[in-house]
Amino acid sequence: MNIVGKSVNRVDAYGKVTGEAKYTADLEPKDCLCAKVVHSTIANGLVKSFDLEEALKVPGVVKIVTCFDVPDYQFPTAGHPWSVEKAHQDIADRKLLNQRVRLYGDDIAAIIGENEVACQQAARLIKVEYEEYEPLVTVRQAMEEGATPLHPDLRKDNVIVHSHLTMGPKDFTFEDGLKAAEDVYGKDQLTVIERDYHTPRISHCHIELPVSWAYVEPNGKITVTSSTQIPHIVRRVISQALGVPAGRIRVIKPYIGGGFGNKQDVLYEPLNAYLTTVVGGRPVRLEISREETIYGTRTRHAIDGSCKAVVTKDGKMLARKLEAYANNGGYASHGHAICANCGNVFKDIYADRLGAEIDCYTVWTSTATAGAMRGYGIPQAAFFSEALTDDICHAIGADPLRFRMENCMPEGFVDPANGITFHSYGLKKCMEKGADYIGWDERRRAYANQTGPVRRGIGMAIFCYKTGVYPISLETASARMILNQDGSIQVQLGATEIGQGADTVFSQMAAQTTGISFEHVYIVSTQDTDTAPFDTGAYASRQTYVSGMAVKKCGEALKARILDYASFMLDGRPVDELDVDHDFVIEKETGKELIDMPTLAVTAFYSLERSEHITAEVTNQCRDNSFASGCCFVDVEVDMPLGKVTVKEIVNVHDSGMLMNPKLAEAQVHGGMSMGLGYGLSEEFIYSDKGKPLNDNLLDYKIPTAMDTPDLNVKFIQLDDPTGPYGNKSLGEPPTIPVAPALRNAVLHATGVAMDTIPMTPQRLIGAFQEKGLI
Amino acid sequence: MNIVGKSVNRVDAYGKVTGEAKYTADLEPKDCLCAKVVHSTIANGLVKSFDLEEALKVPGVVKIVTCFDVPDYQFPTAGHPWSVEKAHQDIADRKLLNQRVRLYGDDIAAIIGENEVACQQAARLIKVEYEEYEPLVTVRQAMEEGATPLHPDLRKDNVIVHSHLTMGPKDFTFEDGLKAAEDVYGKDQLTVIERDYHTPRISHCHIELPVSWAYVEPNGKITVTSSTQIPHIVRRVISQALGVPAGRIRVIKPYIGGGFGNKQDVLYEPLNAYLTTVVGGRPVRLEISREETIYGTRTRHAIDGSCKAVVTKDGKMLARKLEAYANNGGYASHGHAICANCGNVFKDIYADRLGAEIDCYTVWTSTATAGAMRGYGIPQAAFFSEALTDDICHAIGADPLRFRMENCMPEGFVDPANGITFHSYGLKKCMEKGADYIGWDERRRAYANQTGPVRRGIGMAIFCYKTGVYPISLETASARMILNQDGSIQVQLGATEIGQGADTVFSQMAAQTTGISFEHVYIVSTQDTDTAPFDTGAYASRQTYVSGMAVKKCGEALKARILDYASFMLDGRPVDELDVDHDFVIEKETGKELIDMPTLAVTAFYSLERSEHITAEVTNQCRDNSFASGCCFVDVEVDMPLGKVTVKEIVNVHDSGMLMNPKLAEAQVHGGMSMGLGYGLSEEFIYSDKGKPLNDNLLDYKIPTAMDTPDLNVKFIQLDDPTGPYGNKSLGEPPTIPVAPALRNAVLHATGVAMDTIPMTPQRLIGAFQEKGLI
Repeated sequence: MNIVGKSVNRVDAYGKVTGEAKYTADLEPKDCLCAKVVHSTIANGLVKSFDLEEALKVPGVVKIVTCFDVPDYQFPTAGHPWSVEKAHQDIADRKLLNQRVRLYGDDIAAIIGENEVACQQAARLIKVEYEEYEPLVTVRQAMEEGATPLHPDLRKDNVIVHSHLTMGPKDFTFEDGLKAAEDVYGKDQLTVIERDYHTPRISHCHIELPVSWAYVEPNGKITVTSSTQIPHIVRRVISQALGVPAGRIRVIKPYIGGGFGNKQDVLYEPLNAYLTTVVGGRPVRLEISREETIYGTRTRHAIDGSCKAVVTKDGKMLARKLEAYANNGGYASHGHAICANCGNVFKDIYADRLGAEIDCYTVWTSTATAGAMRGYGIPQAAFFSEALTDDICHAIGADPLRFRMENCMPEGFVDPANGITFHSYGLKKCMEKGADYIGWDERRRAYANQTGPVRRGIGMAIFCYKTGVYPISLETASARMILNQDGSIQVQLGATEIGQGADTVFSQMAAQTTGISFEHVYIVSTQDTDTAPFDTGAYASRQTYVSGMAVKKCGEALKARILDYASFMLDGRPVDELDVDHDFVIEKETGKELIDMPTLAVTAFYSLERSEHITAEVTNQCRDNSFASGCCFVDVEVDMPLGKVTVKEIVNVHDSGMLMNPKLAEAQVHGGMSMGLGYGLSEEFIYSDKGKPLNDNLLDYKIPTAMDTPDLNVKFIQLDDPTGPYGNKSLGEPPTIPVAPALRNAVLHATGVAMDTIPMTPQRLIGAFQEKGLI
Repeated sequence: MNIVGKSVNRVDAYGKVTGEAKYTADLEPKDCLCAKVVHSTIANGLVKSFDLEEALKVPGVVKIVTCFDVPDYQFPTAGHPWSVEKAHQDIADRKLLNQRVRLYGDDIAAIIGENEVACQQAARLIKVEYEEYEPLVTVRQAMEEGATPLHPDLRKDNVIVHSHLTMGPKDFTFEDGLKAAEDVYGKDQLTVIERDYHTPRISHCHIELPVSWAYVEPNGKITVTSSTQIPHIVRRVISQALGVPAGRIRVIKPYIGGGFGNKQDVLYEPLNAYLTTVVGGRPVRLEISREETIYGTRTRHAIDGSCKAVVTKDGKMLARKLEAYANNGGYASHGHAICANCGNVFKDIYADRLGAEIDCYTVWTSTATAGAMRGYGIPQAAFFSEALTDDICHAIGADPLRFRMENCMPEGFVDPANGITFHSYGLKKCMEKGADYIGWDERRRAYANQTGPVRRGIGMAIFCYKTGVYPISLETASARMILNQDGSIQVQLGATEIGQGADTVFSQMAAQTTGISFEHVYIVSTQDTDTAPFDTGAYASRQTYVSGMAVKKCGEALKARILDYASFMLDGRPVDELDVDHDFVIEKETGKELIDMPTLAVTAFYSLERSEHITAEVTNQCRDNSFASGCCFVDVEVDMPLGKVTVKEIVNVHDSGMLMNPKLAEAQVHGGMSMGLGYGLSEEFIYSDKGKPLNDNLLDYKIPTAMDTPDLNVKFIQLDDPTGPYGNKSLGEPPTIPVAPALRNAVLHATGVAMDTIPMTPQRLIGAFQEKGLI
């Protein structure tokens, strides 16, 4: 490895720092119309009629369409690959605009105008007659006998899916486990714990709001430029939503200002595509405000977890149970996948000697739709498992580090449900490194007997995370490379740069495999579905692993073509005696430079004897997966009267295989840790009892600022994963996972108070401290 | 053939008729700066210094660069493929801006400003100090002993190249031929003719003027969107002009409003690319006015031809000689290629029994640069050969049709100089069909003995034309196809739609070969050199033949991949039992439909068992060529006192192999005939003795209007050419070639006056008629 593994600068650093990089809105044509979505002002009900008369009089209004006008197709929005099996297809539960209102702010009409002001004015003048039903804000309300079904055509109740999972013996139940435990260990050697934990609904808070603009090309192609993580999936979903063949849809994805999973859903692109068709194909821009983004796009699921565990008093985990209730909001989006993922990882992360039992419920309610968000159910799983673990340790007087060392998922772990394997195992090494860094034993001791209102504590949490979605779903990615006449190459992918540095590491991979130097690799950052190779997109921390393997295979194919041409230039010298390195065809054995790439390239283009344009294009269907893992250690100061948690020291340690670019990897971890701090301490999107959003803006919804953020320390255990293209496995999502439970466990250590709910806001903390008589 | 050969509507018809099709200027970003070139006001000399003080004070002026600032690279501008052999490389005789002024309007500085007005104002305020030399307006002046060399570093005289060609015995001379003729036939059986003919400098008059805009991408790529016929060549030439590797240049070509060869030169793209680099990569637009286009881009060469011929009195062509002097203007552009082509075809088109001798001179002068224009030297060759032929016939009393039938290039003709073969021979059939259509014998007879001031006459002319440039130069083209998940395909080419209908016939070819229906073929009309397959571009009437073969081969490759996947879906059924037709995989033998394409495509994308994204990309290096041919017959009325020629009837008959799309082919011929009428009757770009353009605008430069244009009749002889991908050969340029000489010969028939110069303007005709005492 001469370039993979190096901390080269981002290929887009200059453009992004100077502001020259072009994002969706920067690329709008001059004559773009604009559009505004009209949202319902009730949380549950039915649109009876519209009165558009006054709205249509507003100068500059071009057209208003309502839920009564749109094509009669139900479509799904999840950024999943299509399934050719109907049973595995995502739930098609919405139209472009909905007559049946399932949440406050549902999309019921849209205005197209010459300018934003006209659209805003008209929106206020539209009168809507509703039939209103009782809002179902909580999972409990939605699951109650007799609750109005939100999607009666799909389910008579509001439960999207209930799944039951087990680990251990077939049909294992926690009750069986408890009984077996008593038989083996004796009742007095056991401790049983039952806890209910609550995780909040949160917003992704990407900087760039959802924005797209669409027009119809003269050849009839509906072309949508959008800020999305998944251009090829957006293409397919627009096709479904409009009833237009996919070949007539074209999606272009420029640079994007963050997504974090929200843009792994197909949000307003289908509506935007439809809107241009009603104005004769003129360009129409649809930009969504921060408020609309918070209540109207996607959120991380609020999941309530009822947990039980039985352990021996000397610290053996025997059996656990989780009942998880995910509030999915008004639409199915990713359906049950996220809550199921939560349940799966809850059972995987510890080795219950007897077994584990999991029930997962994903439930429609009259609130914001929940979908993919960094971690995809695992931040919740980790909160449940790690809070539970520390509560166990607290109960039996065990050291949380040693307890985890003893009970965590072992080397070589294979998930019996799907065969996913821990190919390169660094979990315990991560714990060792983190404990060493933070001085676990010393600080645990030092903070043992505190008094007074301000106390210190340290906590930790662990996690595991798959790499991509195989075998749960399809993993497929293509790559194309094009040799230029100066010996440089373009690398064209369907995989997307979404701020995480994908373009940079793909460029490193291409350089590594082709032997063409990094500075001569030009990544085509924009995906245009008309010409870009197919890839499902940026999600599931899959790209360096799945798309990276496509880059590797494509690089090998390109190099093979280069060497074949070199052999021709070298009078038939056997290809297996040749290689490419530092922009030269070399003699493999001696390293002797034989032909420089510019000479080879220009000859291949222009030789009268043999002209060929050297390109390569390959598909990688990935049939592997590997667990990544890691942990967070945190030292906090808790000011109990103020209800304030100050992070004094924090470190994440990651087992993500070999690092493609350590500097970028570290930056990725920084971002994830920051999100984890918000998740643990301040972020929560809340609703009134009547289903009205109460803090759908960045004044009232609190993300950590730079001032709130401590120094973020990052360590890695680099193990060469045998299944990753360059020894790598997932890193994108993991960093955010362990932070919130580590914080919660540190508060427990500092104060003895076991918080059951995040975020640990001052209000919640003060309440808990008061309840315990600490203040 | 179910779709090739059909007159389907153009794929871009809707967009172009409605105005929705986007051209270069339509795509400019909102924040584009603009630029203006400062042109010399002398025709020959040297820039000594600039005074920019006042110009820089104009509000809105951002930057002024002069010939003293630009990179010190000489570069060529011809739209030829690069040659890896130095001797065959185009002449690099200019810089981005030139201190050495070679023509009135040479590019000496450029202004970048916030708006056009600021640029214009500043341009007027720049003061230039020159050292001035005598302008060399004519070839004679430029070739005179002691004339100032325009490019002393390249040639001590002004002759770019002089070439001497022969047909027949090695080192044949016309004098040898004359002597041999006298020996064989006896002097009294011979007629010797000597004539000097003159063809004008003309302008292409494409509707869309040269325009481009450029910016620097954050990754350092200089990106130029331009109205060009040759995006990949523009990329390479910008690289040469700026001294930047080709991989750092990106060229994008949207729809284009005509080119006709002018945009087969790299015009202002390199300067535009440079200008963005001096303003930190901000977008800069460079749009050229009509006046600048006429004097400052390219023109068709004014070639003077001194011709001799010896024939037997009973009509056998024995030997001919041509001395051709091409006025190339200030810069070499395509160099000697055009004049050499003129000489070559002059010798090919008739079978001189003893031989032919050709001398071609291409000469720099202080006038507008001559470059490629529809016909590439052959309109001049045809004027010389066809005028000469009718003058011979007039002298010996032969019928011009029968004389041509007797003496024209024969079936199976092979050019001994380059091996180009007349594979499918339709020349004589064209003459028969044209003569039949116009009623040659009847009208020749009817117009035999006219008196009075207004007379009728009929004339004809023939031509031959190669298909592409092999083996004179490289012919190489690539194509890529991408299967969409709805079973439709994208076709991506480096070959360019320049208004001629290429996108439509390529789509037909793709449908024909893949078996996917025409309406499911989406051509990617825009070429982006970062991702488009390589192709040298639109010129030499090469695309349906050379790039068309790439489409055919790519279609075959795509179909092979489709059938391979079908075989997998059909449990290993052998591929050779399968075919694709009307969007179905069928059983080859019975035609039974086995799998519809949408099902196959969606399976290939999303199969868990075998996911692959079916694409294909191939290079076609063409090593064939075939002569196309044809003729024009015209019936004119000549009003001698008015000097007015009115076309009463005109027909072109073409032997271009099989037609890909008869309606588009006919439209192509219409356009060519219209240009031929202008060439024969009205178009000429003229200079003063001091080298100042006298009619560099469309008021004073006369192109035919719709009012001037008679009904244009078109006939074809369709012969299946064995070398064309679908039996086709060149058609793009030929239609314009025979019209002017046919007109000239009709005037001769009507009046007995043998015009030696085109255009036959009223002034010229009246002068000639007066000289002959006819008026």
